[in-house]
Amino acid sequence: MKNFEFYNPTRIIFGEGTIARLRDQIPQDATVLLCYGGGSIKNNGVYDQVLTTLSSWEMIEFGGIEANPDYDTLMKAILLGREKGVDFILAVGGGSVIDGAKLVAAGIPYTAGEVWDIVTQDVKVILGEALPLGTVLTLPATGTEMNGNSVISRRATEEKLAWVSEAAFPVFSILDPTTTYTLPAKQVRNGIVDAYVHVMEQYATYPVDARIQDRQAEGILLTLQEIGEKALEVPPDYDTRANFMWAATNALNKLICQGVPEDWATHDIGHELTAFYGLDHAETLAVVMPHLLWHQREKKADKLVQYAQRVWGLTGEGEPLIREALDNMIDFFNRIGMPTKLTDYQIDPDQAAARIQARFASRGSRMGEHKAITSDLVAEILRMSR
Amino acid sequence: MKNFEFYNPTRIIFGEGTIARLRDQIPQDATVLLCYGGGSIKNNGVYDQVLTTLSSWEMIEFGGIEANPDYDTLMKAILLGREKGVDFILAVGGGSVIDGAKLVAAGIPYTAGEVWDIVTQDVKVILGEALPLGTVLTLPATGTEMNGNSVISRRATEEKLAWVSEAAFPVFSILDPTTTYTLPAKQVRNGIVDAYVHVMEQYATYPVDARIQDRQAEGILLTLQEIGEKALEVPPDYDTRANFMWAATNALNKLICQGVPEDWATHDIGHELTAFYGLDHAETLAVVMPHLLWHQREKKADKLVQYAQRVWGLTGEGEPLIREALDNMIDFFNRIGMPTKLTDYQIDPDQAAARIQARFASRGSRMGEHKAITSDLVAEILRMSR
Repeated sequence: MKNFEFYNPTRIIFGEGTIARLRDQIPQDATVLLCYGGGSIKNNGVYDQVLTTLSSWEMIEFGGIEANPDYDTLMKAILLGREKGVDFILAVGGGSVIDGAKLVAAGIPYTAGEVWDIVTQDVKVILGEALPLGTVLTLPATGTEMNGNSVISRRATEEKLAWVSEAAFPVFSILDPTTTYTLPAKQVRNGIVDAYVHVMEQYATYPVDARIQDRQAEGILLTLQEIGEKALEVPPDYDTRANFMWAATNALNKLICQGVPEDWATHDIGHELTAFYGLDHAETLAVVMPHLLWHQREKKADKLVQYAQRVWGLTGEGEPLIREALDNMIDFFNRIGMPTKLTDYQIDPDQAAARIQARFASRGSRMGEHKAITSDLVAEILRMSR
Repeated sequence: MKNFEFYNPTRIIFGEGTIARLRDQIPQDATVLLCYGGGSIKNNGVYDQVLTTLSSWEMIEFGGIEANPDYDTLMKAILLGREKGVDFILAVGGGSVIDGAKLVAAGIPYTAGEVWDIVTQDVKVILGEALPLGTVLTLPATGTEMNGNSVISRRATEEKLAWVSEAAFPVFSILDPTTTYTLPAKQVRNGIVDAYVHVMEQYATYPVDARIQDRQAEGILLTLQEIGEKALEVPPDYDTRANFMWAATNALNKLICQGVPEDWATHDIGHELTAFYGLDHAETLAVVMPHLLWHQREKKADKLVQYAQRVWGLTGEGEPLIREALDNMIDFFNRIGMPTKLTDYQIDPDQAAARIQARFASRGSRMGEHKAITSDLVAEILRMSR
């Protein structure tokens, strides 16, 4: 096991009816900036629940935070927050709203330079205290509700960058599984795949005898496999949605990555597929990961065999065993309605390979837990996605 | 799944060589009260490592915190701390030292009443800020290094009481597996059983469809079973000790109990066995739990079958399956040198049953996840421990 440092101070308030707990989590004299997205919370009753709960608080609203939250949008929120003297940020929505609100919470008191510095420079050096941020999660997927990660896009300069800081942990996150009841099936499917691939990125590398972490990772994968199809059913089942929600949080609250190597090449490649073809983030992961794992099967053999045995209960050995496990993964994704090939989207794998190879070659990228996946190998992997 | 609230702000710094990290975790202008126990840290080099690391800090020492830390001892530390104006508590040792240091950290600034109030009254009401507490754990077992629990004995009044508070979380805990290398085999064995039973108390109840929590619990049990015998080997194996240490922390950092019912009757009964017969805490757990689980096999049937299948990989059904799983547990405990019957200690089960029945009857105790274990049933369970 490698040495590690784990710190996660976010308070999780979980279960049906917990939005009312906002009342004891936000100081009564706070001026609150309520951040949300495209307005789905106005249709599913969550917006009304929040406003009713906080009716005696001074509330400033900022709606319209888009998917892949844009720096220019967030700067408007920051300027509004400064103007109104807000001292608490409340994000209500999914991963993009929360990621964006993290920059708002850090950006409002940041006056030492341009707010974009927070995204591009060493936050340990430049960033002091952020405003406190609370969240009400409505879309289980990214894990941002219980970590210090935030991904910000800047469309004006075609950048999309992640920043990570202890100042970006929400002080609390409210997870009420009933807020997911009105999600379209496609977003539930995306969330399941997103969480599943998050776990695999931290698990399917090479063994370092980190047994608790491995079992925790396998437990999340098994849970997602067990509840995946039922999570898509209407009317929704409470416990199924609760397990989905808590699984997605645990997939990226940084417990399972402690002391182990991490991959994340599937994410790196996937981001380019979103950029070139506009696929949803989870869609890109599903068309890359099964092929990447097969391509890397020699380097990842020990963990892929463990995955086959413990997560799919398979027997056998060597490449046929690994192939069977990856076929099971593909079958699982397909069963919940998620395609696993570029050709399912009428995207030519050869064209995608050429474009993305060029992109990575120009950057000299080397990815994965061994930094062994070059742009040439990325092209090989993408050509397999057919 | 039940509703839950999870909060755990303790920073874990894990791995070989991490005691040097004290330097960046304790403010340089702090006056530190170093709390430790009977002096084993002076023989295994940990004391020297700590003092060398903190040679430029102002250090006040308080040694001699005993197993089952005594209120009178801790009051001496509190008075010393007040006299010297300490503003940081550093606990170096096992569960008793850390539990005691939690009261010291809370007690030094507590002037609204008698410090014993912290143990007996509602800490949410009476307790303000505690002094910051850091720990260097040398004995994996209780999980206190990553929770807000503390158990204090008061020998003068024959009391032993637990208090739980968010103010009792260590701000950091350093877990260096090499500090366990000099532990006597008996303490390693005790730690493994302590952690194992902690998990079972939070797991072997009734199902509420809390899949992540169940898998996390099962993962800790599997890990302890896998590493148990090897953890006793000399010379010690680093990864084995690392897995033991992280397993014990995860057994009681309150992740696996979120949203599920809890039992703790084995602990309640075990405390009385320690009081009457002086058995080590873990020894009491091992002579109670297998018999209690068999006695309660109807109420706990679903979870015990799940335990048999997932943790021991058994097939079969009903009572024979449960019996086989509990025999496996007993065999596991015995293999690491832990007896599982009162008669192994030349204690008469009938006498113990009579004594402890009387104790619980006088209190009107009802224990377990259904509050269905009366003093009469405690007597039945203890008579089975032969």
